[in-house]
Amino acid sequence: MKIAIAGSGALGCGFGYMMQKNGNNVTLIDFWEDHIKAIQETGLTITVNGKEDNIAIPIGKPSEVKDTFDAVFIFTKSMGLRHMLEEIKHILTEDTKVICLLNGLGHAKTISEYIPEKNIIMGTTVWTGGLDAPGKTHFMGEGPVEIQNADVNEKEGTLQIVKMMSDSGLNGVYSEDVHFTTWRKACVNGTMNALCSLLDCNIKELFETTDIDGLLKGIVSEFSLVAKTEGANLNVEETISYLKATAEKVGAHYPSMHQDLKNKRLTEIDFLNGTVAKEAENKGLEAPYSKLITQLVHAKEDILGIKR
Amino acid sequence: MKIAIAGSGALGCGFGYMMQKNGNNVTLIDFWEDHIKAIQETGLTITVNGKEDNIAIPIGKPSEVKDTFDAVFIFTKSMGLRHMLEEIKHILTEDTKVICLLNGLGHAKTISEYIPEKNIIMGTTVWTGGLDAPGKTHFMGEGPVEIQNADVNEKEGTLQIVKMMSDSGLNGVYSEDVHFTTWRKACVNGTMNALCSLLDCNIKELFETTDIDGLLKGIVSEFSLVAKTEGANLNVEETISYLKATAEKVGAHYPSMHQDLKNKRLTEIDFLNGTVAKEAENKGLEAPYSKLITQLVHAKEDILGIKR
Repeated sequence: MKIAIAGSGALGCGFGYMMQKNGNNVTLIDFWEDHIKAIQETGLTITVNGKEDNIAIPIGKPSEVKDTFDAVFIFTKSMGLRHMLEEIKHILTEDTKVICLLNGLGHAKTISEYIPEKNIIMGTTVWTGGLDAPGKTHFMGEGPVEIQNADVNEKEGTLQIVKMMSDSGLNGVYSEDVHFTTWRKACVNGTMNALCSLLDCNIKELFETTDIDGLLKGIVSEFSLVAKTEGANLNVEETISYLKATAEKVGAHYPSMHQDLKNKRLTEIDFLNGTVAKEAENKGLEAPYSKLITQLVHAKEDILGIKR
Repeated sequence: MKIAIAGSGALGCGFGYMMQKNGNNVTLIDFWEDHIKAIQETGLTITVNGKEDNIAIPIGKPSEVKDTFDAVFIFTKSMGLRHMLEEIKHILTEDTKVICLLNGLGHAKTISEYIPEKNIIMGTTVWTGGLDAPGKTHFMGEGPVEIQNADVNEKEGTLQIVKMMSDSGLNGVYSEDVHFTTWRKACVNGTMNALCSLLDCNIKELFETTDIDGLLKGIVSEFSLVAKTEGANLNVEETISYLKATAEKVGAHYPSMHQDLKNKRLTEIDFLNGTVAKEAENKGLEAPYSKLITQLVHAKEDILGIKR
C-alpha cells in the first residue's frame, strides 16, 4: 500500500516505521526542518518497545512531496490539523483514504471540509511515544488501533487498512462504535489532562484528592450530555469507573497537557473541554465546568506567555 | 474602653496597639505560645506605616484571661472563628459588643450561635499587615474600618465603637450597608484570591489574561445571585468595574490565598466561593463556577499535603 504520514512526530514515525518494515511504501511528511534533514541524512532511528533500529525512509515538507497515496495517516496536534489538510491537498486523489487517530473532539467535521465523507476513517490508538532528538524517536505499546469509516457504505476499504495495520504489528481493529471510543478517550483527557495541568500534579495525586468524585462527575456529566446529541451514549457512572481504573493503571504519570504547559506549548484544551463547552452553547445546553476549565487553562497559557 | 482582641496576628496586634496607645485598656488573646511568650517578655514590637514602636501589652491564651470586656474584636482566620468563640465565652457579659471584621461570608450566622444579635457588630477593613516573628508585626494603611450593628436598634453602641476607633487613628466609619461592603469584598477575594491561587500568578498577570472578563462575569454573577437572596444588591457590571479598578491599584501583588498555598496553609475558600456554592445549593440556585473553584482549591490543598 502506498502510504503517507502527515505529521511525523513520535506517533507518525512509529506508524510509518512499522508499516514500511512490513513492505508498504511509506513517505513521511513534516514541517520541522532539523527533523527532516536528520532523517534524510542518517535515516530514522527508532526504538520500538525497547528495541532500537535505523531505516532509510523518504521524508519531506508537504510541498516537496509530489506523489499521490492510497492512504494518508494524520498525526498532527489537534490545532495543526486544518493547516496540514490545506498543505497536503495535492497528494490526495478521489480515492485516498484519510485516517485520523488524533485525540480530541470535532476532527471529523474539520476533515469533511476537505475530502468526501466516503474517504474519512476515524479512530483511536493507545500506542504512545516520544521524540528524543531530530531523527530519533521511540514508540511503545501493543495497540489496539480502532478505526471505523465515517460513511457506513465504506467498510470494505477500512477492513483493508485494518488488515494492513495488523500485518504491520500495529494491532488494527475494526470498530463498530469508534464514536463512543473517541468520546470516552476525550473524557480521559478532559479530566486527567485538564485537571493535572491546572493543579500541577500527576494522575495519582489527582485521584487521591478528597473530592475527585465531585470533579469527575461534574466534567463527565457535561461530556455525556453533549456526546448524546452526537449519538454517542456515554454512561456517567460507567465512565467514572473506567477513569478510575485507567488512573490506577497509569499511576504517578504527568499527562501530555501538563507537559505542554511545562514546556510552554499551547494545549489541546479547545479540542476537549473547549469543544464540549462550545457545542453545549450551540445546542442550548449547560456545560459550565467545561467552560470554566477551558478559560482557566487558557489563562494559564497566557500567564506562561504561550502565544495562540 | 475595656477591649479584648481575640486573635492577635498582624491585624489584631495592629488594632490592639492603636487602641491601647489612645488610652484604652487592651488585652491581646491568642493561641500561639512563642508569640505570647515574646510579647510577655519583651513587649510588642510593631511597625505602623513604617514607624517602629515597642509597648507592653497584656497577652494570654483564652483560658488565662479572667476579665470581662466592653468590646471584643475578632481577628482569627475564618476557619478559626468558631473555635475562638467557644474559648472566649467566659470573657463576654450580656453587654459585651463583639466586632467581627473578618474577610469572607457566613460569619454573622456563626457568631449568632454564641451571642445575642444585639451585641453583634459586623464590618470590613482595608488595613493590612504581616507577622515578621513572634512578638514582631507590621501594620499598614489608613482605613477605613466600616462597621454596622446587626440589630437595627443598636446603632448607639456602634457609634461609640466608631468614635473610639477614629480617636485611635483607625478611621472608623459607620456604615448603613455593611452587608453590601462585605459581599463586594468577598467578590474581590472570590475572584483575585481564588484565581491567583489556582493559576499561581499575581493580580496583574491574572487581569492581563485574554478571557479575564469571562472569568469575572462567571464568578460575580453567582455571588450577585446569592447576595440578592440575603438582601445585598450587587450589580454585576459595577462590581466587575470595581474589581478592575482594584486590580489596577494593587498591581503585581500575590494575594493572601496564594501565599497560604505557598506556605502550605489551609485557604479560606470555604468562606468565599464555597459559601456561595453551598448557599446556592440550599436555595435551589446554580453556582457551578463557585462549586468548581472550591473543589479545585481544595484539590490543590490536598496535593500540597495541607491537612483539613
